[in-house]
Amino acid sequence: MIIIGEKINGSIPNTGAAIAAKDDAYIRELARIQTAAGADYLDCCASVGDGELGVQEWLINIIKEESDLPICIDSPDPKVCVDAMQFCDGRVGIINSVSGEGNKIDVVFPAIADTKWGCVALLSDDTGIPKTADDRMKVFEHIMARAKEFGIGPERLYIDPLVETLGANPESLLTFNECCRRIKEAYPSIHITSGLSNISFGLPGRKFINMPFLVLAMAAGMDSAIMDPTNRDLNGVLHGADALLGEDEYCLEYIDAYRENLFGPLNRD
Amino acid sequence: MIIIGEKINGSIPNTGAAIAAKDDAYIRELARIQTAAGADYLDCCASVGDGELGVQEWLINIIKEESDLPICIDSPDPKVCVDAMQFCDGRVGIINSVSGEGNKIDVVFPAIADTKWGCVALLSDDTGIPKTADDRMKVFEHIMARAKEFGIGPERLYIDPLVETLGANPESLLTFNECCRRIKEAYPSIHITSGLSNISFGLPGRKFINMPFLVLAMAAGMDSAIMDPTNRDLNGVLHGADALLGEDEYCLEYIDAYRENLFGPLNRD
Repeated sequence: MIIIGEKINGSIPNTGAAIAAKDDAYIRELARIQTAAGADYLDCCASVGDGELGVQEWLINIIKEESDLPICIDSPDPKVCVDAMQFCDGRVGIINSVSGEGNKIDVVFPAIADTKWGCVALLSDDTGIPKTADDRMKVFEHIMARAKEFGIGPERLYIDPLVETLGANPESLLTFNECCRRIKEAYPSIHITSGLSNISFGLPGRKFINMPFLVLAMAAGMDSAIMDPTNRDLNGVLHGADALLGEDEYCLEYIDAYRENLFGPLNRD
Repeated sequence: MIIIGEKINGSIPNTGAAIAAKDDAYIRELARIQTAAGADYLDCCASVGDGELGVQEWLINIIKEESDLPICIDSPDPKVCVDAMQFCDGRVGIINSVSGEGNKIDVVFPAIADTKWGCVALLSDDTGIPKTADDRMKVFEHIMARAKEFGIGPERLYIDPLVETLGANPESLLTFNECCRRIKEAYPSIHITSGLSNISFGLPGRKFINMPFLVLAMAAGMDSAIMDPTNRDLNGVLHGADALLGEDEYCLEYIDAYRENLFGPLNRD
């Protein structure tokens, strides 16, 4: 599993407050703890109105000082995404994200065409999130055609099939998983990713939806997650599911992660 | 999901001590808390050497006083299972268990043939647990042929495809799930059940194997579990997975169970 640490995101209230206060130490700590918890990338989303690119530069510079991890540049504005690539120096990261909406692909794909950068691609279009798997797969086919045009191979794409909240759509996971299976069948080397908490929006005890969602999506082919790697319960379930699904022979990574105290009881005597 | 509460089992050290001490109150409390936690059946396993039938009678009488739930009579000795049916009065329960081993089927199936009792059937034979799904399915076909002989319909059978510990066999879940899919495809009305903890034997942080095992097995068709219904984390994951898999439209049962405080934070202010 490729873990994209989600905590440096201004839409999270405490992080937003730290960004507004230019609190270096808070951001640095988020970079440190996510790196220690085993993240593979650090998502970086300013989530500010004015001066977003400047805030991205400030955030990325802190991350670079604190962590060796590559950065996942996250903005609803594709221009900010590509303009922020320069701040990453040689670190090959991920753009988060394009979709079938507006001109996102036209801005991002040319900028990463001749690089090794990856890109998250959401299966939404100008109408929002298509209801059926068939309609999401049409967005997918469109994205793949455009990627091919720019020589961007499937192994550089992180497809997010998108979930609706389960309380509003009982088919939410089933539609997501059908997309996962069809995408992986068509392009075995492609990545599939998702946030883990949208599906439980509005429901109580959300972790009891988020944890089985992670497990079921992994079983359908999801090989990445945009998540809080310091969430010990999610981390444990992720390692357990990997072992159960035959991705961690003899549970060696599971046992290592447990020994590194990434999940399970915090205090061990 | 059909939950068989596992706590009244003499092989659990505290329960074994209560049985040895003839501690009525302890057994009564196990019946009460499992009933309150939403169990559908209460497993009852004396796990004693001598006088097993007498201990079963004592346990069953306590359960009958404390709970309206039907009983799952659990013994390695098929004769004890069928002889204990008389103590259940009119309550139609489940025998736990037969398998392809020895004479179990010959003792149990005639005794339940003309009743509505159910029966757990393990896919093991005199050689132990067959390694491959194909070999377990041979045991399954044998059990189904014998059940047909006695007019026992698939809807009365709870097939346990059996798991080996994941630390010893990386294919453990994959083999289990392949059996689940083949069994449900052949007999859509049959039940599939399993204990949840054998798979994590010998591994640290066992709940992080047991929880995703429950979720993945449910996705493959398991519709029953022999488990501790008072385990709030397992209960939450079970309800979440049910909702995600489309078995609980608009999360109504999930929300009810949360409101009844069966999972989630214990203290709510």
